[in-house]
This record gives sequence, C-alpha cells and structure tokens, in this order.
Amino acid sequence: MDIKNEIESRFEDMTAVRRHIHRYPELSFQEEKTKIYIYDQIKNLPLDIKRDVGGNGLSARLQVNDNYKTVALRADFDALPIQEENDVDYKSEFEGVMHACGHDSHTAMLITTAKILCAHKEDLPVNVVFIFQHAEEQLPGGAKSMVEAGVLEDVDYIYGIHVSSQYTVGTLGYSYGYKHASADAFTFNIIGRGGHGAEPHEAIDPVVASASLVQQLQTIVSRTIDPLKSAVVTTSMFNAGSAFNVIPTKSEVRGTVRTFEKSVQEQVMTRMEGIRKGIEDSFNLKCELDYVKGYPAVLNTDEHVDLLQETTSGDTDFITSVEEVETSMGGEDFAYYLEKIPGAFYNIGTKNETLGTDYPHHHPKFNIDEEGLKAGVESYLRLITGFREV
Amino acid sequence: MDIKNEIESRFEDMTAVRRHIHRYPELSFQEEKTKIYIYDQIKNLPLDIKRDVGGNGLSARLQVNDNYKTVALRADFDALPIQEENDVDYKSEFEGVMHACGHDSHTAMLITTAKILCAHKEDLPVNVVFIFQHAEEQLPGGAKSMVEAGVLEDVDYIYGIHVSSQYTVGTLGYSYGYKHASADAFTFNIIGRGGHGAEPHEAIDPVVASASLVQQLQTIVSRTIDPLKSAVVTTSMFNAGSAFNVIPTKSEVRGTVRTFEKSVQEQVMTRMEGIRKGIEDSFNLKCELDYVKGYPAVLNTDEHVDLLQETTSGDTDFITSVEEVETSMGGEDFAYYLEKIPGAFYNIGTKNETLGTDYPHHHPKFNIDEEGLKAGVESYLRLITGFREV
Amino acid sequence: MDIKNEIESRFEDMTAVRRHIHRYPELSFQEEKTKIYIYDQIKNLPLDIKRDVGGNGLSARLQVNDNYKTVALRADFDALPIQEENDVDYKSEFEGVMHACGHDSHTAMLITTAKILCAHKEDLPVNVVFIFQHAEEQLPGGAKSMVEAGVLEDVDYIYGIHVSSQYTVGTLGYSYGYKHASADAFTFNIIGRGGHGAEPHEAIDPVVASASLVQQLQTIVSRTIDPLKSAVVTTSMFNAGSAFNVIPTKSEVRGTVRTFEKSVQEQVMTRMEGIRKGIEDSFNLKCELDYVKGYPAVLNTDEHVDLLQETTSGDTDFITSVEEVETSMGGEDFAYYLEKIPGAFYNIGTKNETLGTDYPHHHPKFNIDEEGLKAGVESYLRLITGFREV
Amino acid sequence: MDIKNEIESRFEDMTAVRRHIHRYPELSFQEEKTKIYIYDQIKNLPLDIKRDVGGNGLSARLQVNDNYKTVALRADFDALPIQEENDVDYKSEFEGVMHACGHDSHTAMLITTAKILCAHKEDLPVNVVFIFQHAEEQLPGGAKSMVEAGVLEDVDYIYGIHVSSQYTVGTLGYSYGYKHASADAFTFNIIGRGGHGAEPHEAIDPVVASASLVQQLQTIVSRTIDPLKSAVVTTSMFNAGSAFNVIPTKSEVRGTVRTFEKSVQEQVMTRMEGIRKGIEDSFNLKCELDYVKGYPAVLNTDEHVDLLQETTSGDTDFITSVEEVETSMGGEDFAYYLEKIPGAFYNIGTKNETLGTDYPHHHPKFNIDEEGLKAGVESYLRLITGFREV
Repeated sequence: MDIKNEIESRFEDMTAVRRHIHRYPELSFQEEKTKIYIYDQIKNLPLDIKRDVGGNGLSARLQVNDNYKTVALRADFDALPIQEENDVDYKSEFEGVMHACGHDSHTAMLITTAKILCAHKEDLPVNVVFIFQHAEEQLPGGAKSMVEAGVLEDVDYIYGIHVSSQYTVGTLGYSYGYKHASADAFTFNIIGRGGHGAEPHEAIDPVVASASLVQQLQTIVSRTIDPLKSAVVTTSMFNAGSAFNVIPTKSEVRGTVRTFEKSVQEQVMTRMEGIRKGIEDSFNLKCELDYVKGYPAVLNTDEHVDLLQETTSGDTDFITSVEEVETSMGGEDFAYYLEKIPGAFYNIGTKNETLGTDYPHHHPKFNIDEEGLKAGVESYLRLITGFREV
Repeated sequence: MDIKNEIESRFEDMTAVRRHIHRYPELSFQEEKTKIYIYDQIKNLPLDIKRDVGGNGLSARLQVNDNYKTVALRADFDALPIQEENDVDYKSEFEGVMHACGHDSHTAMLITTAKILCAHKEDLPVNVVFIFQHAEEQLPGGAKSMVEAGVLEDVDYIYGIHVSSQYTVGTLGYSYGYKHASADAFTFNIIGRGGHGAEPHEAIDPVVASASLVQQLQTIVSRTIDPLKSAVVTTSMFNAGSAFNVIPTKSEVRGTVRTFEKSVQEQVMTRMEGIRKGIEDSFNLKCELDYVKGYPAVLNTDEHVDLLQETTSGDTDFITSVEEVETSMGGEDFAYYLEKIPGAFYNIGTKNETLGTDYPHHHPKFNIDEEGLKAGVESYLRLITGFREV
Repeated sequence: MDIKNEIESRFEDMTAVRRHIHRYPELSFQEEKTKIYIYDQIKNLPLDIKRDVGGNGLSARLQVNDNYKTVALRADFDALPIQEENDVDYKSEFEGVMHACGHDSHTAMLITTAKILCAHKEDLPVNVVFIFQHAEEQLPGGAKSMVEAGVLEDVDYIYGIHVSSQYTVGTLGYSYGYKHASADAFTFNIIGRGGHGAEPHEAIDPVVASASLVQQLQTIVSRTIDPLKSAVVTTSMFNAGSAFNVIPTKSEVRGTVRTFEKSVQEQVMTRMEGIRKGIEDSFNLKCELDYVKGYPAVLNTDEHVDLLQETTSGDTDFITSVEEVETSMGGEDFAYYLEKIPGAFYNIGTKNETLGTDYPHHHPKFNIDEEGLKAGVESYLRLITGFREV
Repeated sequence: MDIKNEIESRFEDMTAVRRHIHRYPELSFQEEKTKIYIYDQIKNLPLDIKRDVGGNGLSARLQVNDNYKTVALRADFDALPIQEENDVDYKSEFEGVMHACGHDSHTAMLITTAKILCAHKEDLPVNVVFIFQHAEEQLPGGAKSMVEAGVLEDVDYIYGIHVSSQYTVGTLGYSYGYKHASADAFTFNIIGRGGHGAEPHEAIDPVVASASLVQQLQTIVSRTIDPLKSAVVTTSMFNAGSAFNVIPTKSEVRGTVRTFEKSVQEQVMTRMEGIRKGIEDSFNLKCELDYVKGYPAVLNTDEHVDLLQETTSGDTDFITSVEEVETSMGGEDFAYYLEKIPGAFYNIGTKNETLGTDYPHHHPKFNIDEEGLKAGVESYLRLITGFREV
C-alpha cells in the first residue's frame, strides 16, 4: 500500500468530512445528524455496519479472514456546549455548540482510514472494527453503553487517537501505563442552622465547618496517598451565604478527584467518607457527600504501546516524531474499552503556531491544522498493515 | 399632668399617625414624604422647628426656660427593603418597602409626646428637643450627619426608644453600660490563579487559602480577645467557583464584626490585617481586605439608666414591668448621640402573641400591638416631668 | 469594740503566726504540722473546735446565742511546690515548698480575728464559725470534703479573703456575681500508627490530626459560646515525636477550660466530645479525651457583696479603699461553700512596691506587706459586728 | 574467569572480613580502625591506593590500560548509633554502635571483588576504581568530600550496591530513573509570648499558630506539587508546653522533606518560606525556619541500568532474579557520584526468613544472610568483565 499517496489523494475528502461535522456540532447524547452523516460516508463500503449501538454509536466490521485477529479503531463524534469564536467558513452553525475538542477530526480520520483499508482489504493481516462513538464528553459516556451493547465482541485489541494542540503537526505522542486519570466529581452539602451573624451561639455555622472540611481534604493527598502514586483532590467550588450579617443554613463544597489506580481511588473515597462523618461530629451538623465516579483511568498495555512505536517509527511519511508524552490527569471514556481488551490510546499533534492552532482544548478558539490528520491516518494504516501478534 | 388621660385621649390620633407612616414607608435617605408628614404634624405646636437637619432629619425645640437643662428625645423614621406580608388595611403601599423594624411607631410616639408636652409647657422642669431622625437602617446613618449638623447644640441629655417584639406590651427594658454592639462589615477578596481542577500545580488555589483564612479568623475571638469582653467575628459568605473541575481565580469571604469597646474593635482589626498579610505569604496570592466600620456601640450612662428606672417605676399607668434586659449584639446609630452627651436607649415591649406581633424584627410579618405605644409615651412623659439633675 | 486598738495590739502576734506558718510550709493534703499549729493557737479560746474535718481541716464555732444566725469565715493553709527565692529570716525551711500564694496570711488573719471576737463574744450579733481549710491548691480541694463532712451545718452565710499582690495595702476589692471561673483540665491522646517520615501512606499521622484538633477547638469559643458570656479553651501542651524523620505513633494535647456558668461549661464539654469523635473519623485513628472538672466558679451573692461594702466603707481604720475589681479566670475552691450557702469572697491588697511585694502569686519571690493584713482583719471584724440580716 | 569458583573459594575470607567489620563498628566520621583494616586487606594488591580521601575514605585504582575507560565501584563502611540485639559471635563489641544497615557487607563484597579482579587484571576490558567511603549515614556525608577530593578524576562510570532485607537472597533489584529521594530536614521555631492558660489575651499563643502551620504545610503536597511528581512533607515532631494551664512561650515543629527533582525541592522550600512568613503575620509572633538540605536524589542513568540488567541476566551463578524494584523515598549519598558521572545504584537481597534476616534496616536485630553477598560480588564481576561502552 502506498500510504503516502493514499492519504494525499483523500486529503481533500477528509477535510471536507471534518468540516462538515465541525459545522453541525451536536451535544453528547444528541448526535442525531452526525450519526446519519457518518453512516452515509461508510454505507457503501464492504463493511458490516451496526447502527445505534448503545445509543447513537456505530460499529463497522471489515472482516478479512475469520482466522485473523481483530483490531478495533475508535473515534468519538460529540461536541461541547461552547460558543465558537473562530472566524472560518465552516464555523459552527449551531449557537453555543462547538467541536472544541477535535472529535470532528477523530471521526474524519477514522472514516478516511476505513475508506483506505477497505480498498486494500485483501492485503490486511487483521480484521478491523471501526467504532464511531457518541457522547465522550458527558457522564456516563458513550463508550460504556457501546461496550455493554457488545461492540467489543470478537475484538482482540483496540487503538484510539486524540488530537492535541499541545504537540506540533507530525508528532505522535505515546505513553506507557496510564494515559488518562479517572475523573470523579464530589459534592458536600453541609447543613447547619442559620442565624444572625451577631449571634453565632444561636446558629450552627456551616461556613466554619466547611473551611475545616477543605483543610482536612488536603491531608488525603498529603498523608494517605503513596507519594510515588498520583492523586488530586480539588475543591473547586465553595458557596455559602448571601448576606454579610446572616449565618447561612448551608454551604456547598464541590470538586473533583483524579487518580489512576482503583486502589488509590478507593483510598480517597474512604478518607473522604471518614472526613464527612468527622465534620458531622466535630461541628454538630449534617454533612452529606455525593460522590460520582467518572470514567476510569485509561491504562495502555505495554505491548501495544511497543507495537505502536515500532510500526510508526522509521521510514514514515507524515509522522515526523514519535515521542513519549506526559500522562494526562484529565478523563477519557476510552478507559472502558481498555478495561475489556488490551490496546493503546495516543496523541496526534495538530499544533501550528502560525495558524494559531495552539489554543487549549475546550477554548472557544480551539482549532486544528488539518495537515496533522495525515499523520493520524498514517498511524492507523501502519498499525493495521504492520500488525503482528504481541 | 394626668398622664393616663393624656395618652388615652390621644391614642386614636397616635395610631392614625403610625398607620399613615406605615402605609407609606420610605427607604433610608429617601424619606421625602415622611419628613413632610412629620412636619405637618408638629408645625402648629409651640416649637422651634428645624428642617433638613443633616439630610431628611428634623429637630424641634420646646424651650421652657433658658436656665433649664435640655433633654432630647429621638425617634427614627426610615423603612426597610422588605415586602410586607401582613394582611392589614394600612399595609405598605410601596412594593418591596416596609416598616419592618417599628420606626413608624417610634415616630408616632414622639409626635404624640410632643403634642402632650407642648400642652403642658409651663409645668415642665426641662427644655425638650424632639429629634426626628432619618436613615437609621443604612450606613453611614442619619444620626451622624444630624449630630454634625448641630442637632445636639444646647442639649444636655438624650433618650431614645426602640420597640421590641421580644418583650410583652407594658414592659420597659433597660440595660446598664452597652446597649448595642458596634456592627462592622468586612470583605476579603482572595485572588489566586485559576486552572484545571486536575492540575492544581499550574494554578494557585484561592479556595484552600480562603479555608485557612476562615480558620485563622476564629483565633481572633478564641485567643486575642479578653474572655471577659465580647467580640464576634462571623464569616457569613464564602463564594468561589462555578464548575466542579475548574479551580477558580478568586474567592470572596464576607462577614461581620461585633464589639463594644473600641479597643476590642481595634484588636480585631489589627489581627484581621495581620491574617490578610499572612494569607498572602502563606499561599502566594493576593488577599485584599475591605473593612467598613459600622455604627459604634451604644453606651448608656449609669446615672441616666438609674433616672429612667426611677421615674418609670412605681405608680404607673401603662408600664407594667421595668426590667433589665440583655445587651444586643446588633447595631444602632443612636450611638453617635451618646458619644456626645449622656443618656440612655431602651426598649418598649410590643409583643402580643394573640395578635401575632411576636415575629422578629425585619421579618415580612413583623407588626406591633399598638397598645404597647402607650407605655412608650408614658415613659417619655415621666422622664421629662420627673426629670432631675443626675 | 475599739477595732483599731484591737488590731494594733495583736499585730505582732499576727505576724509571728504568719511567719511561723510561712517558715514551715506544707503541700496540699500533707498539712500535718500546720493543722496542729493552728489548733494550738485557738485551743484555749471559748470555741467548739472540730479537728480533722474532711481531712486536715479544722472548724471552730463561737456560739453567741442559739437564736442568732451564723456566719462562717474561711482561711486556707496549704502551700505550693515552689522553691522560695525571698531573702527573709522566716524563709521556707522546706526545700521546694513555699507559701507563694499567701495562705499563711489568710490563716494568720483568721486566727487573730478569732482571738479578738472571742474577747468580745458577748457583744456579737451573730454566731461565728472559723473554717481553717487544708488543700486549696490541689484537686479535688479541701473545701469539697469539709463541706461533705458537715462544716456548713447550722451556718447561714460565709465570707472569705484572698490577699492580692495586685492591689495596694488598704484596698478591699469586691466583685458582684462571678469572682472566679471554674478551672478544668483536659488531655487528648491521639493514637495513630507510627512509621517512616518518608512513607506517610504506611503510617497514620497523629500530628496532622492533632493540628486539626487544635484548630477545631478554637471554634468552641468563637462560634458556640454566647459572645456575652465568657469561656477559655487553651491548648497549652502539644507533644509528639522525637525524631525528625519518624512519624510518631501518638501525640498528646493538653489544656485548660475556664467558664463561669455550668451551662457554658456543659457546652464546651459537649463540643469537645464531638470534636474528639470527629477527629477519629476524619483521620481514621483513635482519639481519647480525659476531661477533669476542677473547682466550680465562685459566685458571690449580691446582698452579701452589698453588706460587705456597706460595713467596710465609711469611717474605717486600715481599709483605705473599697473598690470593684475584675473577675478572675483562675479557680478557687471557695466555690463549694457558695454552692451551699450565700456569701462573698473578696480581696485584700498586700502590694507595696517599695517592699517589692508586687510579684505575682505563685512566683518564687511572692511576698506580702504584712501591714495589709490589718485591713483584712478589720473587714472581718466590721462584717461580724456590723452584721444584719439581708 | 570462573566466576562461580572465584566466589566460592573466597567466600570464607569474605565472611571473615564482614564479621570483623561488624564486630568493630564505628560511627560516621569516626571510622579510624575500619579504614586501617580495609587498607590492610588491600595493601598488597596491585592497586594505586589513596588514603584519607576527603576524610576517612580510601580509593584504589586497578589500572589495566591507559586507553580503557574506568568504572568505579563503591562501598560505604560506617555504622549507626544503635545497640545491637543479635545473638551472634561477631556481635558488636562497641556499646551502642552497630552495623545495622549492612555497610559491613558492602565493604566485604568490594574487598573480595578487588581481590578477584586483581587476580584477573590482564583480562579486564576496563580500569576499575574501588571506592571505600566513610560516613554515609550522617550529613554532610562522606561521598561529598570524597568527590571534592577528586575521587572521580579519570573515572567514567560508577556503580554501587546496597544490600536489602526486603529482597530474598539471589535477587538483584534495579530501578530506572530515581533510585532514592533527597532527604531534607527542617525545624520551625515558633516564638510567641507565654502566659496563664486562663488569660490567652495577655499571651501570644504559639501552639495555635503551630497547628495552623502544620495544616498549611499539607497544602504544599496537595496543591503546589505536580501530582505526577513525588514529594513528602512530614511534620514528625511538635513539641510545646509543659503545664496544662500555662501557655508556653515557644513551640518547635520538626520534620523531613523528600523529593526527587531539584525543581520540586525548590518549590517545597519556596512555599515553606512563604508559610513561615505567613505564620508570623497571621499570628503576630516570630517564626524561624531552619532548612537543612540532605543528600540529593540518586538518579540512575538508563543506559547503565540497561547494562546492569544485561550483564547480570541469563546464565548466572548466584543471581537468581533480576527485577525492577520500587524507588525509595529514603536518602543515600551515592547521589553525589551520580551528579558527576553516569552509573547506577542497585540492591542485592539478603533476606532469608528462616535465618530471621528480614528485620528492617536500622533495627537492632537487623542482620544478613551472607549467602546473598555472593550475588553481590557476582554482579560486580559480571558488570566489569562484561563491560561495554553505552
């Protein structure tokens, strides 16, 4: 397969697909138009397509040989509740909704990859399943329901890409071990007894109790978690009271927890529950904790990161640098696939300072240098054509 | 003077005055109609009336004898930004404004007292100045500007009444020493650096710094203030953040300080400023403090509380109980008068559970049993007619 | 009775008694020699003496008339574990034991008072009981056991003196209401799990938990106690660890609580117990609290302070000033008597800067100007001879 | 070279050397006898020996060929202030001093290695420098002064062993990247103003300030340090006060800091200094910080860990397992060598539960299974004989 030519010749088509999706962004779990658009793009390919898998998701199997192993490639396609501030002709048509995380390009790369691989079906050493996943941005995430709906049946390995405005076009960034942290959310409601600010003894002050709560939460990371492991406990919100001289009845403290190992997550939750009880006794009030587990951590398997490196290094066309990148404390529901089967999730650079595509993800001016997508497709093609059992 | 008859015969007039004022409440510093109404009520009396004293205030001197001492009696007449919920025919006509603290009745009592005393001018042992004060409810308070405008010139002593829904009709409540605390307000702005909740090291977390601030503020009362003295430091508001996974740039902590002695107030302010600086250094961020002094403490003079008790005890008509009541940690701008001349501020009960006039002050259903006003007028009349040098 | 002459003529005897006791000080509950010395001083007087009352205490009744009321006067006689640093010829003979609080002079005044009153028995308007009390300096205090042993049977009122190096010779200092606070002691044992300082996750850190404990304790006074009332919660001791790189197994936090009202003491204890439980849950360790109630607060009765003032003011011989003095947050077991019968505890000044008798009590150089004792005896004599029912 | 035979035939000699050193342990910087003993062991070998290098250290060069590279092997030889509790015939003869960390065996292995390598000088592919280092256990450490004295001149790489009671005999444990953390010590002196526990307002309480200090220190790890990096801030000691009712003048808080990267250490120190200043302002007292940097982190170079693995794996005699082991948060002055030249520090197992040699290091019953030393010598021999440029 002449990878360079395959990609160059389909580049215009790929950018058209990407821009179409970009122009009509849809929020998580509401991807009605997008799922049809994707279907239309692949419906004539020699694929066994399943629609509405676990929601708005699609899967499409390219069965080469029943004796072969099967590799899945995954792209997500939902957008974010952000008002786009880019001045481009394919700017979002939908007020307050935007592809500000690059999922449009993930899908465009995967459609293009599917088109190319189908054209070379006979030469492939593995079967391939293309997973088009809805709802990555919002709990409980589309990956969970797609897995539950059986999208990984008869699939042996899985790979996925996230574009990144942090890395230059041409860069492939891999990580051994954890690639993304789990991302949980918690809410404490501290319910005391309101009263006049001049008469604290008639009230039970939830603000002082909450301040103690915030300080005690610091000791989870500083004392309970192994210093060689990672955990974050952030109290991002603290809201109480609306008048300078009225002790409020309640206060609310919200935040997020990031961990990798489940055992560490468990330690955080155990201490947090202890602190919740402790606050109740110490301050003689009610303290409720609502802890919502987000996506688990994304844990790559070493062999598949090795294979990724091996197949994408050397004599490449668009990939100019294969480098180890830092783990992210952010969440990603690709985790659910890796809980079931081995594989790897990795980054493809789309940063181009000249074009201004170096805004952080989720920024109203986030955009990509589409040249970067060539390296993404190349990585998929090389992974599949260079596949070997590991 | 037949006190009983004087009061009974003018009771209908007094309640009419009070209800008129109640019906047309005006916010602090906006008492345009009320000041005219008061003037109309007293303009035909043998009084030397001054209008627009220090704002919307009025003073009216009943000069009996140039060799006599002069006693001032004060009533305030502004209302509150509260929507009345009483179902009475004199209910507030003005949306969202209400006499929810009883200033209407203060003024009605003082007008009635003026009418009676003017009718007995020849018998009085002192000159009397009637002070009708605007804007007690809002900083910087009308008392301050009236004093600055000279309302206390040639005045030797001063008395004032606050009705109270805490004490039964017929009760006169006095306090030696401090009657009201000073009431200050403070606002801390803690300005760090916002960031992703998963990356605390890239941010400077203002929430954790503010939690430490709240805890450090506790040590002012617990460690710095003489346990035999009183102080309150309440952090009523703590507002920071609006997303569970975003460390906010800033947080705001607001509250109130209550003290009696200026030296204690000074100690609180000094520690608070130290803590402000401490937070900046400890957490490497900016911490701003805006401290607004409210009214000073109301400090009665012992001799005038003695005289109050003496003249209102014994064979009375409407006063059924003269009792020592607890100091209030709430503020009152009567303090400014007592900083200049001796006197006393005291309570008159208006509580009647059968009528439902036991709601706390500032409540949308606050109201008074107008019978209680008789004891208030009686106390003024007995103080003036029974006056002796102390 | 010629009070002046009575006192002057017995002054040499009184100082001799005081110096004898000073020279042979005995610790609380060990006053073997002192109790015999006191007995020898009064055994020949017309008194009904009871020995070993509730321990080393003595009581001696001067029964004037069975129809009369009975007033008790109390002096304590134990010393302190302090090494005297005064250079006087009656310096303590006992290593490390010293009358550093003036109990020697209390006893000398009471013996002299007894001698004088006995000489004028026929003229007295009341019966008098002289209470010589052991063990004031140490819990549980001699007063408690003497009361339990019946020392207040057929006694109607009680008075007691404490000399004070804070007030000048000739001063009588009285207080209405509370004269001394209750003085409790508490010990927290926080038991975690020790470990290497580099591996906090393998240990359960009692130091951090104890720091949180100390901060939470601040909120008792700052939030729970009525700002118009008094309370002190002091953590005087915090001891944990002995190596910079070893997390200790346990830490100990000790301190004292001072309150007046039992309800306030109760509030402190309730919060403290809550905080104890809270620390256990918050930090997943064991937190034990040992709370030892000390003497209750000394609460004078208004009528007896009135009587004290009345009888000791005016035409006096050695008393030159009768003034209201501040309540003390320190403890005194005179409280047990006042829990049973009315009375008053007051101060007699012994300060004389020229003589250097202005060191604080419990200081190794504490001493008194013996001239001051004349005013003390005078106060007793005037109280007894001027006694009237109140 | 017949490694197996070489080691077996010298095993008796090696254990004799080790036991001699064990029997006569000497504290850091006081290793007078030990340094002579070592010299005596090697003085007849074809080595260029330097004595008293940077203190009690020795270096001995085996120069094979001036064109060859040079590899250093290092052993330390100081003991600890611990009273041995082992019941062995070579038990420490010196009261309160003990080889409780295994340095005796390090030196025995290195002496044996020197003897073997000298016997095969002609076959070696590199020059070897044997470094016998004093004073590893105590700051500032012997490594620093030996480096300053030039021990690494003309040395290209360095390796060192620490025995470990955590790993079974036969185990070689290696780590990529950081092998040991830096280990710093800090002492805060918080100096307030002492006073009576009942009168906090007359004192400035250092205990409450110190409690706030401890809590603020938690936020260094919880908020300032990158969660993907490691840091420990432990407050192991908190000592204040000696009487339950006396507020002390000062308190002392001591502890340790562990980090790997110097930038992280710097962040900890910067925050700590900020908190120090913050405490001064917040609590109006003096807060002094004495921060003593310990050994830097030990940072192995990847290529030399690779070489270590490569040369010691496969067909070995005494090494039965080569495994990656966890980084240690403890300190080790081998760091100073690796700051200058590349190399690796690794573990050799000496644990044998049957023999009871599984007590932790620094325990009075710490001991080794001497069989384990064979694998240590083997690793040195294989490293040297199998050396290749990396």
